[in-house]
Amino acid sequence: MKEILSSDFKVGILGGGQLGKMLGLAAANWHLPLYFLDDSRNFPAGGVAEEFVEGNFNNYEDVLAFGADKDVLSIEIEHVNTRALETLQAKGVTVHPHPEALDLIKDKGLQKLFYQEHGLPSAPFELFEDENAVRHAVQTGKWQYPFVQKSRTAGYDGKGVAIIRNESDLQHKLLPGSCLLEARVDIQKELAVIVARNADGEIAAFPVVEMDFNPEANLVEFLICPARIDAAIEKAAIELSKRCIETFGICGLLAVELFLTPDQQILINEVAPRPHNSGHHTIDSCYTSQFEQHLRGILNLPLGSTAMKCPSVMVNLLGAEGFSGPTRYFGLEDCLALPGVKLHFYGKSTTKPFRKMGHATVLAENIDEAVRIAKLVQQKLSIQA
Amino acid sequence: MKEILSSDFKVGILGGGQLGKMLGLAAANWHLPLYFLDDSRNFPAGGVAEEFVEGNFNNYEDVLAFGADKDVLSIEIEHVNTRALETLQAKGVTVHPHPEALDLIKDKGLQKLFYQEHGLPSAPFELFEDENAVRHAVQTGKWQYPFVQKSRTAGYDGKGVAIIRNESDLQHKLLPGSCLLEARVDIQKELAVIVARNADGEIAAFPVVEMDFNPEANLVEFLICPARIDAAIEKAAIELSKRCIETFGICGLLAVELFLTPDQQILINEVAPRPHNSGHHTIDSCYTSQFEQHLRGILNLPLGSTAMKCPSVMVNLLGAEGFSGPTRYFGLEDCLALPGVKLHFYGKSTTKPFRKMGHATVLAENIDEAVRIAKLVQQKLSIQA
Repeated sequence: MKEILSSDFKVGILGGGQLGKMLGLAAANWHLPLYFLDDSRNFPAGGVAEEFVEGNFNNYEDVLAFGADKDVLSIEIEHVNTRALETLQAKGVTVHPHPEALDLIKDKGLQKLFYQEHGLPSAPFELFEDENAVRHAVQTGKWQYPFVQKSRTAGYDGKGVAIIRNESDLQHKLLPGSCLLEARVDIQKELAVIVARNADGEIAAFPVVEMDFNPEANLVEFLICPARIDAAIEKAAIELSKRCIETFGICGLLAVELFLTPDQQILINEVAPRPHNSGHHTIDSCYTSQFEQHLRGILNLPLGSTAMKCPSVMVNLLGAEGFSGPTRYFGLEDCLALPGVKLHFYGKSTTKPFRKMGHATVLAENIDEAVRIAKLVQQKLSIQA
Repeated sequence: MKEILSSDFKVGILGGGQLGKMLGLAAANWHLPLYFLDDSRNFPAGGVAEEFVEGNFNNYEDVLAFGADKDVLSIEIEHVNTRALETLQAKGVTVHPHPEALDLIKDKGLQKLFYQEHGLPSAPFELFEDENAVRHAVQTGKWQYPFVQKSRTAGYDGKGVAIIRNESDLQHKLLPGSCLLEARVDIQKELAVIVARNADGEIAAFPVVEMDFNPEANLVEFLICPARIDAAIEKAAIELSKRCIETFGICGLLAVELFLTPDQQILINEVAPRPHNSGHHTIDSCYTSQFEQHLRGILNLPLGSTAMKCPSVMVNLLGAEGFSGPTRYFGLEDCLALPGVKLHFYGKSTTKPFRKMGHATVLAENIDEAVRIAKLVQQKLSIQA
């Protein structure tokens, strides 16, 4: 086996967006070179790449060519060509997460079936061929409003999800194609746990985070860590997440999004086998960042401590409504004058409404103070064109 | 004025070693592109540079050409061509630290005269033309053993300093050329304070650090923060350091190395107007890293909070004795298995005895535990050829 920090040891990442960029920054601390495959070297990871290969990570040939000389391959997005990853794995390239897990996870229908099969708690669901079959099920009284429709394969970052509340939604808001319906669960809180595993089977979980959504954009807006929940819930959420990564048999990270119901049940919403928005705060608030932890996991290194250094609130910095075009930042100085505000910009050259342009992690002695400052960040900073 | 994060706003750094690299990583969080000038793009900062210009930062023409299209210029090493910086400043380029301060600081004789002139406490000294003049002063009884000889301009990282204890040292260990002699001060502890200032005059200091030297290599070996000193000493050390940066009128960082004498006096040993080894722990242990703080200082942004997230001990990772050649890391996995160990490698392709190859910051709930783990890091990790 080649030595991990030797110059001929190559780690390739499919995807060169913000997650790839932050993975590259974590790797740079160790001076571990990362290679990226994505459409354009002007993408966020371009500046931290040992080499940025321009190509399509959904294209079999592109992934095969990219992976051929790599020792370890990983991803920053699950929607990649898994056939190519299987071929590469058969040729001896280490691929984490393994392609079978990617296939399971990127099809939300298979993901739900997997939970059902393995006794992992999740909301009741049914699979449908297309939107017409959904309409039929509603019209015949088999499903009642409200319910959640999820596209099986088109979903990413809150896209591919429709909440159907009434007849009008049924006519105008249904997503096309293969999908699943999920009973609308009463939710007390949405939680997330980032959990990691290495090939030796070691597993470690970061503290539970509490997610606040912007209802309009359907994107996480505030992320609070540690979550304001009972110790028993915290423990149960972490145990479920650990069981989840163990069952998938994934190396690297698994981000587990959870629903906490009013009667204290914990249900799996969905998972992502990679660094995740809900773990960005770890860069500034935990002993080990999720990005370093992902590297440890895929390289079969001992996992790092997930202890917190201080409480944190993370805010996504979204493109302002009404602006599309070359990115400009307003209120930067006011923001930097606030104590404990850690700004992370992804360097996207153009903005559009609700596009994730960066994030701010607010560190403070307690959560109330961090929330107060996070709101000021939102007021002061505006990303426009 | 151009907007700081716009693509045509250019920040140039003279020097592309490990300090430049870590400055580049801090800038990457904001997606602020940094441009570097140094001999080879294979130097540590090469991987994080927006553009790495190969050239000599001591050469007037090289610095002039490099700086011509930059908005702000700074340094990672004080031994640069300050004439070129003066020319660039006159042409409207913002240069921090200002060239006059660099001239004062890089000549240890002028530095000592500056302290004397401004009532900044420092050990008694005398300037000498060369080593023969030193011998004469000793032989005529004007200076007695032991004393410290410092080369006026050749010193960097503990080089250019000789401790002269006896007649044999006087014959064999004196450094050649223009120098100063300093009375050997009784030292209780060596301390350091990293202080920052911006053009608006805002000043902020990081907590005092306590330095333990490896006597053989004359390099800092352990760096403990917060220092184990009385609150009154902490306060005095910080006030003196703030007075120091204010007197120099520097923007960006000033690292102030201090002696604490057995009778509780604090004396300035020497200063460096840039990120410094004694501030590396801040990357992992403070709300703001010294590198981000340097950027805030030179860009006249509000300074960041210097509060600590947790106690830390920093260990320099030096090339092992007896090995020179292509770098290899031994014991990496054992090291990563220790809790709270943050490894930073600089990516130097060749090692030699005592060369600074990286550093480890150990985070723990208290200093004793961090020291215990830092010693394990030293035992387990070996950088060889």
